[in-house]
Amino acid sequence: MTVELISVGTEILLGNIVNTNAAYLAEQCAVLGLSCFYQTVVGDNEARLAQVLETALGRSDIIILSGGLGPTRDDLTKETAARVMGKELHMDEHSRKRIEDFFTKRGLELTDNNWKQAMVPEGAVVIDNDNGTAPGIIIESEEKRVILLPGPPGELIPMFESAIYPYLSKAEPGVIYSQTVKLCGIGESKAETMVADLIAEQGNPTIAPYAKIGEVHLRITAKASAEKEAKKLIKPVVKELKNRFGMNVYTTEENVTLEQAVVDLLLANKLTVTTAESCTGGLLAAKLTGVPGVSEVFKSGQVTYSNKAKHRLLGVKKHSLGKHGAVSENVAKEMAKGAAVSSRADVAVAITGIAGPDGGSPEKPVGLVYIACSVCGKVKVKEYNFTGNRNKIRESSVIAALTLMRHCILEYYSALLSAK
Amino acid sequence: MTVELISVGTEILLGNIVNTNAAYLAEQCAVLGLSCFYQTVVGDNEARLAQVLETALGRSDIIILSGGLGPTRDDLTKETAARVMGKELHMDEHSRKRIEDFFTKRGLELTDNNWKQAMVPEGAVVIDNDNGTAPGIIIESEEKRVILLPGPPGELIPMFESAIYPYLSKAEPGVIYSQTVKLCGIGESKAETMVADLIAEQGNPTIAPYAKIGEVHLRITAKASAEKEAKKLIKPVVKELKNRFGMNVYTTEENVTLEQAVVDLLLANKLTVTTAESCTGGLLAAKLTGVPGVSEVFKSGQVTYSNKAKHRLLGVKKHSLGKHGAVSENVAKEMAKGAAVSSRADVAVAITGIAGPDGGSPEKPVGLVYIACSVCGKVKVKEYNFTGNRNKIRESSVIAALTLMRHCILEYYSALLSAK
Repeated sequence: MTVELISVGTEILLGNIVNTNAAYLAEQCAVLGLSCFYQTVVGDNEARLAQVLETALGRSDIIILSGGLGPTRDDLTKETAARVMGKELHMDEHSRKRIEDFFTKRGLELTDNNWKQAMVPEGAVVIDNDNGTAPGIIIESEEKRVILLPGPPGELIPMFESAIYPYLSKAEPGVIYSQTVKLCGIGESKAETMVADLIAEQGNPTIAPYAKIGEVHLRITAKASAEKEAKKLIKPVVKELKNRFGMNVYTTEENVTLEQAVVDLLLANKLTVTTAESCTGGLLAAKLTGVPGVSEVFKSGQVTYSNKAKHRLLGVKKHSLGKHGAVSENVAKEMAKGAAVSSRADVAVAITGIAGPDGGSPEKPVGLVYIACSVCGKVKVKEYNFTGNRNKIRESSVIAALTLMRHCILEYYSALLSAK
Repeated sequence: MTVELISVGTEILLGNIVNTNAAYLAEQCAVLGLSCFYQTVVGDNEARLAQVLETALGRSDIIILSGGLGPTRDDLTKETAARVMGKELHMDEHSRKRIEDFFTKRGLELTDNNWKQAMVPEGAVVIDNDNGTAPGIIIESEEKRVILLPGPPGELIPMFESAIYPYLSKAEPGVIYSQTVKLCGIGESKAETMVADLIAEQGNPTIAPYAKIGEVHLRITAKASAEKEAKKLIKPVVKELKNRFGMNVYTTEENVTLEQAVVDLLLANKLTVTTAESCTGGLLAAKLTGVPGVSEVFKSGQVTYSNKAKHRLLGVKKHSLGKHGAVSENVAKEMAKGAAVSSRADVAVAITGIAGPDGGSPEKPVGLVYIACSVCGKVKVKEYNFTGNRNKIRESSVIAALTLMRHCILEYYSALLSAK
């Protein structure tokens, strides 16, 4: 089956935002085994949108439109799609109630234009929006399916995951099944070289590497008549990849992130953790506390941006700060040790570096970062040289810290085991 | 004049890469005053590419194609465009020489397929590529112009800047100029209602509202013969919006984010700031420390996830935690006060709430958040009821905290002024 993406939004046409929704949807459709030959962007203009939708209906089986479902007069994706598909709009009481609740709960004033979002085309499937007020809509007509999704990625992605993905997975006969082997602590080129032979000979399943900041994901995809068969095809490949990449594999579960894997490792070993951050300014703590259930292991963290704060809150020696500078192996080590002592956590991670754009020097350039990790008193420090802007350097530092934590915990326990 | 963008590339259709070229080109075309109504993505397939190009030629004056100019058999943008425009390809000696030099200079081996890149349509304008081997090409035919650019952004952007921008600036007399009025502390519907009369009567300039998490942006766009004139048209509208929205306007600068505006306010008033976070777990500190130069005002922050940490690090009374619970007005207040005392910062912000998915109760549901802000000893607390998943609730809390900080600082100084 073929799928076509239509993104509706003047902001995209004006180049104010990058069309990340299209990339997300395209990737998901590829996973689902749907062929995508066209993506179009069009503005909030009824005539042009209708024309684009008609063209798409003429050449593709499934059309996914995103954006233009807001409450304002500008937003006319739903109205246009209903007209092109020959459907009347009517008030959906369930959606109306949800919108009312949404506003009441937040103590916000409901204005008349909000009710527009509860109008749905006759016979359409309505998908609840847990992160906003515009419901998603599926219109089925003869052999075509038109799917309308809200534009904000924070609404579109959860809705696609929970409702549209399962819906589309039934659309294509036979199944496409994927599993991802997620790696940390290894570069993209090295990872690719290590599976080059497998990729060269591949048929079904296929292996595709995807590079993320500080991570590499290897996605294995199999086509089969049933999920059970597809899983059977994938199993030996996952096993082979686990053999080749060993400790660099942090999960083979789709929904497990690196921070989740680290939190799981802490939970499994009943270890508490604390953070002491300089250049990342709370980003590592924020990443860890993004994991539900983290309160079992994470009790407190420190953001020590100034030298004074490093000394006062973590007990970093003034002498070390003066002699080696705040961005140094010594200070990273003392930060981790100090954090462990003051918080009494089993694991303490400290990050100090130069995120830029200013503050660099020939000896200590922007991107130089030291990360220390203490596990039950045993401290390890690593030096990193990251590239990119402030944001990229901070993100890279957080992923490196998670990778180092994982490594240190695993190493600690394997040393314990071999000592027995 | 109208312009249309066609991005050629299977990687975009598969969602392997995000189409940043389209965003860049769209933004540049908007600055040039060209109206862009459509953007299309199509794969390296001759029939489909020809069809898309023909459609574009039927409705737009200028077509910019990017990608598919490489040396491999897959790359057929130039061949297809030449055929659709009825032009023969011939060897361009100048380009041939440049390709030869490119390879010789880098000590690389030239393979036969590289010569394909020196073939150009008859009568075309050839644009040198200083960062790769595929030259850019402009085909002019009757009243249409077709521009072919290489796909890698590192080649496309410099070529556009040096040759295509000057070329297009002659095509369209006049410019488009935009300015954004950014609001916080007000909902999208309410903001829209407050400018409904302006939008109903609008001609040139136009006003368009965009909703972000916790923010609304109003973009004013004017067309004029020169930038100076466009700015003159926009000025009174910005003034009117500032009048209507008063303190809710946090900036009218394109590149200023809410966290930047808050940091600027702290810098301007020589105020230091500290954070005490429970449910957001460092996200507010991370947002603030994402602003370059923040070290002048931000020295340290605390992530106090457990009750013990709230007591130990911030001095929150055990009695308060027991009687009111960690998620309460009282505890938020004590957290802010305690953070201010221990850090000696002028401004202290505390966030405590239930981000979910677990931990909610009928009295204290998921999404209930208290934020307290202390400015030089004067504390204000607000209750919020956010919706959405854990991530959305945490993000909403951070934006609300920034909005409250801004509000409290402005209020503090206006009270000081009126007391004088």
